[in-house]
Amino acid sequence: MTSQPTAARGVTGRVRMSPEHRREQLLDLGVRLLATRSYEELSIDLLAQEAGISRGLLYHYFGNKQDFHEAVIRRAVQDLVEQTAPPPIDDAAERMLASVRAYVDYVEANHEGYLSLVKGAAGGNETVRQLYEAGRTTLTDRIFLEDAGQNLPDTPAARLMVHAWSALVEDLVLSWVRDPAGVSKDDLVLAAASSLPGLVELLH
Amino acid sequence: MTSQPTAARGVTGRVRMSPEHRREQLLDLGVRLLATRSYEELSIDLLAQEAGISRGLLYHYFGNKQDFHEAVIRRAVQDLVEQTAPPPIDDAAERMLASVRAYVDYVEANHEGYLSLVKGAAGGNETVRQLYEAGRTTLTDRIFLEDAGQNLPDTPAARLMVHAWSALVEDLVLSWVRDPAGVSKDDLVLAAASSLPGLVELLH
Repeated sequence: MTSQPTAARGVTGRVRMSPEHRREQLLDLGVRLLATRSYEELSIDLLAQEAGISRGLLYHYFGNKQDFHEAVIRRAVQDLVEQTAPPPIDDAAERMLASVRAYVDYVEANHEGYLSLVKGAAGGNETVRQLYEAGRTTLTDRIFLEDAGQNLPDTPAARLMVHAWSALVEDLVLSWVRDPAGVSKDDLVLAAASSLPGLVELLH
Repeated sequence: MTSQPTAARGVTGRVRMSPEHRREQLLDLGVRLLATRSYEELSIDLLAQEAGISRGLLYHYFGNKQDFHEAVIRRAVQDLVEQTAPPPIDDAAERMLASVRAYVDYVEANHEGYLSLVKGAAGGNETVRQLYEAGRTTLTDRIFLEDAGQNLPDTPAARLMVHAWSALVEDLVLSWVRDPAGVSKDDLVLAAASSLPGLVELLH
């Protein structure tokens, strides 16, 4: 019964698509809309309008606005983690530079949504905070697995500093996107990436 | 007419106090209560109870809950700026260490309220954000005036990095208060303070 609306649309001439595929497509659209909006501005109405489908169908896929927002944010965090994955190149410093550059590109391309994620995370929305922290943990853990590979000692103290470094990079990049202060993207990426070993050296 | 409640209390045996003095005293109490609470938890009722005065009198002093919260947060930020002022000692590195140590002490002593300030600032409460940013600007500007005095170049790029450094220190200290990860306060303070020159060197 619950899949009837989708089947009906298939019959009326639209490309028939599995509910899972359709849901994924709607999530992709939600993430694209989030690039230039805060998630408070990302309404079911807006998504319905952009997708050319009814609100009712969206509720069928996502339950309610809260569930929809969480699904979009989960997908956005997943995109961030995937897009900043270190490329398979041998040189560790180059891998780190490529990963930080991908992060800067991501924040540039998704500024409003990312800022909204950071704000929501800090602002007490518990689910957003958990999704954001999970993403940040994935990024931080990766530093010790493969990203840096600069012989960082994997100690609790080093992890404390790597977490703080990620706050530095986040602040640096968000400030830079707002006002580059005469700094080129190359210089920004180099400064952010190369600051890590010295910081960990100070506390491990 | 509006000062009558205070005068009446004076007559009933309490120490007579000017309205300004009384208001300051209530703000001090508000800041002390905020040390172990978020400011969402800091209610007029709680303050009235702790101060032993009526809600009505509090509204007389502070207008409404929003105004009261703003006054308390303004005072808390002022306390932070004052308590972390660099002491009048000659050695620049020692001044910086003393200032960072005072910051760690402040965050330790006022953990809940400070976390709440940071969250409120990031979470979209516009007035809290402005108060927090103003405090942070004061702290950041001071780096170039006297705190560090380590011949930091005062360029837009250097200010970008000093702002990011303050995000690093904030994250480092808040994480450390939650879980010290085997790091002593001395080591934490030294790492936070000594990281700045190298970071600015990377971007100026």
